[in-house]
Amino acid sequence: MSGRIVVENFASSVLFNNPLGDPALRQVPVYLPPGYDADTDMRYPTVYLLAGFNGRGTVFLNDTPGDETIAQRMDRLIAAGTIRPMILVMPDCLTRLGGSQYINSSATGRYEDHLVGELVPWIDARYRTRATRDARAIAGKSSGGYGALIQAMRHPDVFGLAASHSGDLYFELCYKPAFVKYAGAIGKLGGLDGLLRNLHTLRPRDAGYRAAVNTLAMASCYSPNPQAPHGFDLPFEPHTAEIIDAVWARWLEWDPVHLVGRHEDALRSLRLLYLDAGSMDEFHLQYGARIFCNKLAERGIPFVHEEFEDSHLNIPYRFDSSLAAISRAMSE
Amino acid sequence: MSGRIVVENFASSVLFNNPLGDPALRQVPVYLPPGYDADTDMRYPTVYLLAGFNGRGTVFLNDTPGDETIAQRMDRLIAAGTIRPMILVMPDCLTRLGGSQYINSSATGRYEDHLVGELVPWIDARYRTRATRDARAIAGKSSGGYGALIQAMRHPDVFGLAASHSGDLYFELCYKPAFVKYAGAIGKLGGLDGLLRNLHTLRPRDAGYRAAVNTLAMASCYSPNPQAPHGFDLPFEPHTAEIIDAVWARWLEWDPVHLVGRHEDALRSLRLLYLDAGSMDEFHLQYGARIFCNKLAERGIPFVHEEFEDSHLNIPYRFDSSLAAISRAMSE
Amino acid sequence: MSGRIVVENFASSVLFNNPLGDPALRQVPVYLPPGYDADTDMRYPTVYLLAGFNGRGTVFLNDTPGDETIAQRMDRLIAAGTIRPMILVMPDCLTRLGGSQYINSSATGRYEDHLVGELVPWIDARYRTRATRDARAIAGKSSGGYGALIQAMRHPDVFGLAASHSGDLYFELCYKPAFVKYAGAIGKLGGLDGLLRNLHTLRPRDAGYRAAVNTLAMASCYSPNPQAPHGFDLPFEPHTAEIIDAVWARWLEWDPVHLVGRHEDALRSLRLLYLDAGSMDEFHLQYGARIFCNKLAERGIPFVHEEFEDSHLNIPYRFDSSLAAISRAMSE
Amino acid sequence: MSGRIVVENFASSVLFNNPLGDPALRQVPVYLPPGYDADTDMRYPTVYLLAGFNGRGTVFLNDTPGDETIAQRMDRLIAAGTIRPMILVMPDCLTRLGGSQYINSSATGRYEDHLVGELVPWIDARYRTRATRDARAIAGKSSGGYGALIQAMRHPDVFGLAASHSGDLYFELCYKPAFVKYAGAIGKLGGLDGLLRNLHTLRPRDAGYRAAVNTLAMASCYSPNPQAPHGFDLPFEPHTAEIIDAVWARWLEWDPVHLVGRHEDALRSLRLLYLDAGSMDEFHLQYGARIFCNKLAERGIPFVHEEFEDSHLNIPYRFDSSLAAISRAMSE
Repeated sequence: MSGRIVVENFASSVLFNNPLGDPALRQVPVYLPPGYDADTDMRYPTVYLLAGFNGRGTVFLNDTPGDETIAQRMDRLIAAGTIRPMILVMPDCLTRLGGSQYINSSATGRYEDHLVGELVPWIDARYRTRATRDARAIAGKSSGGYGALIQAMRHPDVFGLAASHSGDLYFELCYKPAFVKYAGAIGKLGGLDGLLRNLHTLRPRDAGYRAAVNTLAMASCYSPNPQAPHGFDLPFEPHTAEIIDAVWARWLEWDPVHLVGRHEDALRSLRLLYLDAGSMDEFHLQYGARIFCNKLAERGIPFVHEEFEDSHLNIPYRFDSSLAAISRAMSE
Repeated sequence: MSGRIVVENFASSVLFNNPLGDPALRQVPVYLPPGYDADTDMRYPTVYLLAGFNGRGTVFLNDTPGDETIAQRMDRLIAAGTIRPMILVMPDCLTRLGGSQYINSSATGRYEDHLVGELVPWIDARYRTRATRDARAIAGKSSGGYGALIQAMRHPDVFGLAASHSGDLYFELCYKPAFVKYAGAIGKLGGLDGLLRNLHTLRPRDAGYRAAVNTLAMASCYSPNPQAPHGFDLPFEPHTAEIIDAVWARWLEWDPVHLVGRHEDALRSLRLLYLDAGSMDEFHLQYGARIFCNKLAERGIPFVHEEFEDSHLNIPYRFDSSLAAISRAMSE
Repeated sequence: MSGRIVVENFASSVLFNNPLGDPALRQVPVYLPPGYDADTDMRYPTVYLLAGFNGRGTVFLNDTPGDETIAQRMDRLIAAGTIRPMILVMPDCLTRLGGSQYINSSATGRYEDHLVGELVPWIDARYRTRATRDARAIAGKSSGGYGALIQAMRHPDVFGLAASHSGDLYFELCYKPAFVKYAGAIGKLGGLDGLLRNLHTLRPRDAGYRAAVNTLAMASCYSPNPQAPHGFDLPFEPHTAEIIDAVWARWLEWDPVHLVGRHEDALRSLRLLYLDAGSMDEFHLQYGARIFCNKLAERGIPFVHEEFEDSHLNIPYRFDSSLAAISRAMSE
Repeated sequence: MSGRIVVENFASSVLFNNPLGDPALRQVPVYLPPGYDADTDMRYPTVYLLAGFNGRGTVFLNDTPGDETIAQRMDRLIAAGTIRPMILVMPDCLTRLGGSQYINSSATGRYEDHLVGELVPWIDARYRTRATRDARAIAGKSSGGYGALIQAMRHPDVFGLAASHSGDLYFELCYKPAFVKYAGAIGKLGGLDGLLRNLHTLRPRDAGYRAAVNTLAMASCYSPNPQAPHGFDLPFEPHTAEIIDAVWARWLEWDPVHLVGRHEDALRSLRLLYLDAGSMDEFHLQYGARIFCNKLAERGIPFVHEEFEDSHLNIPYRFDSSLAAISRAMSE
């Protein structure tokens, strides 16, 4: 017995007319577990699965030879009894810069509002979910892991469980090293204007290209500024790579490792707070996870922390671990 | 107006009971151009589009944010008048080792027979193709580019046009450098037995993992040996990395740069012989293309050769160039 | 006509019984220009030439095939009239950790006192120098460039000219990125205790080895702490790589880019303030030079700034440029 | 008690007027053991120590902080009784291209004749050596290891012991991979003419620079051709990187792994045949050593083979092992 995928076309009012001119119509894949169609009274827990940088829900449907599709993964885990039947929702919060980090920003759009305020109730209305925070999890990888964590902290009434795989934590290590690469590459990429204009035709010949685009995207999320030429500030001088403390401080306002105190009650209220990262993560995210968990431990907030021997890439198999933890935590 | 994708489930008799235990049932996406359903008398040229190593037809359907899907690409090119309406067929010749190179091998299965002898006639029977070699092209990238070239050389009666993007040419440079990496990594990967047993659960922690798997796959294609423990010979001693000349010579029998003389008539008969490669190709494939074209030029065989400023990866935009060349060549 | 090298054996009282147990007897090569022995009334300007990390004066005497020795370089520049005859002094401020940065530290020894208070007067007494700050320059590369800059700022009465080639500036970019490498490598290196114990027998198999040793050495210079187990504090937690703000702040007290205001008068008094760095510096030192020069420019302090197309390594030819600038500035 | 270094200035007749215009006057450091001056009747075994690529005898005298000088190393080994008192001779067979590989070539000069025919007798005449092959060893690292091996094979009457540290063996792996880097870099380096003209002013900005220079140097040694524009042939086409079999075959005539049969008697006659290489050698030289030793073993030729956990660089400590083996083998 196997579940099925429905790809919803969701017309967002919240994203209508967003600053970057990204579409308001979004494709949202939904996985319905085996049995969903047979017993029409049954209600199911829901997991919101967030894609990483430069991704959106539909990338979970991509064919990766040698690996499972998300539907095959779910079918297998359910069939083995590792997880209970659950609905999976795969939102699209992508922007033309590569990602919204699942938060609101005057430079990109109101993606937090879209996700939490608009999509969750719509899914609950359209599918037979168990529409309570205790049966609603949010999980993701990389930028998606960040999104899961930040939204669980900000909306514990909506999400009662959170799982971050290799999530963006400790910006000092995961974003800052890219700034000097931006400084080194931006000239060859045509300056900020040139880079933004040619974002999708520029070929990544230059090693600094990815670092530059990544940095722009994060600035659009963490340091928006309606008065700035492109709607956001960079946290460093592009010629000298010198940190601009005032802008960098605004970034840190969004770094989970600095938010544990502020969101302590929310974090404590979670039925599950799961974090992992690979010991060879290319973006040093294992350190962010360690720091975050240390801060949880200092306050006696329960959490699950796994560090696995692998890198940042090609690790969808890690969802086996978080989905099992989510399923267990829901039944407790 | 837009075309549509049909994903066929093709039950291959040729691949039934193949040596690696790979499935005989294959998914074959087919792109039908705009207007295909409206005018049911119209017949169309066909392009067989071959995926690269570790790929199969369905990967052309994957969502890559910031880039087009294959259907969007075709729709745009047709709408702009850059190419005429054409059918696209995306075969699956994947093996559990990562690829068949689209040839027959006692170690993997009869993928050439499957592609040329089984799939082409089936497509011609099922869809309104123009079923002549002059309206049938074969194209691909990387291992798919190799497949296009080798099959056009071997079956000029079937394929009248061929396009190789960054195809595997000059094995001396594109495969040999991986052998010493295999030698350096195989111990940590559990030996040949261990690697084969754990192929899809081993994590690519070791830099040599990809080189090792790639090497195995190529050996399964180019130096099969029913008497050898795993059905194929390696062209080097695994401990010393010393080349075994006799096995290496069997590989070279499959290297297009050594086959120009043998298949001279076939190559000369093609309406289009298109090759390209990036000037920063990670596998040195620009050199193979240069060598191959030199040998064509020595014999006065016409060809189109483009070298572009990019690497081996993330270059689907290059299909714009080959598809346009295919379309032009068909109308001449 | 050629100059000659005398290698002095200098028994330092200041370095006697230093905390790391490094020798108090130091070899100090001195270059005497052509003509020094002939005209015994003639007095000469002096340049103190500081070696980089893991170096000492004698490394300037090393044979590098394809390049000049320091004596050949001086002879050529003098013969060509590019520089006037000058004495060159090449101090040894090496520690067993790789370097003292030419400053005092309770963890390493009083290297500033040795250099400025002990060696300079001894040289002036022993050789026919022009013993005034206007005829005494200090120059160096990398850590030696840092030493030149910091000592010219601290002792403008002693050194009237300073030249920093690719000097350590903007610790944020030149040291901080090594911290996470330390964190990643220190376990395999036997912990801090193990690393210190085996410093010179450990083979740099691990990519993090150099980063780890470099970080230790800098901590011994910039954040000494007599109460700490090894006499210094690390500016980060070794397991999480989290920055310890209080210790990091002590480092920044030694970062030239933060000292321009404090030493403004000294910097303004220099006859020459020369900085350069390569545009491909592996340690990002071109950015530090740019930041430092921006801060000089804001205050109207004169300086010479060159950015050349090269990396951090194998650039002794750059001394041609600084020595010429020193010679010119002395005659003005 | 410590030995001492004499740096001889040797005016070579053999190298006079050599094709590359390199000097005929060479500096040859000689290490004399403790006691040499006291007992003037005593005679000593001799070890000829050959420097690696881009090196010459004097580089053994360089100061490397954290490591011993060659004299310190010898003094320590002799004092500990690990080796008997021995004379060390450090020849200079450098060319402006980076090295002669210690062989004769019409493109570089008669370095084999210089070393074996000219220098050895001169040393025996000038110093109290035991002037027999059984008391004369030849050893070196990298290109110097190659030189030791090739000359011991060619002149077993002169050298009765040979030690190769990480010597150039199996050209297929140690040189061939550089050819495609040459092809990729030579355009930016000004072509072959430009590269040769600017050899020592070109900065190694381009990753291919070293590979290109190394390749030129080896071609000057292994495939000289008085008719060719620069006196040698390249074993590949510079634009396509295609191997030219006829030239490559001439290189292989100099590859020790192909010479075991031809020099079997010489190899068998050695009192010591010592080879090592690091298991992480950047030039894959551990594989060459394994292949060579396999071929020795097949013929029952005795040898000592060590593989150590380290790379190709910064491994002078390995001389402890070969010098001890040399000393032991002499006394047997």
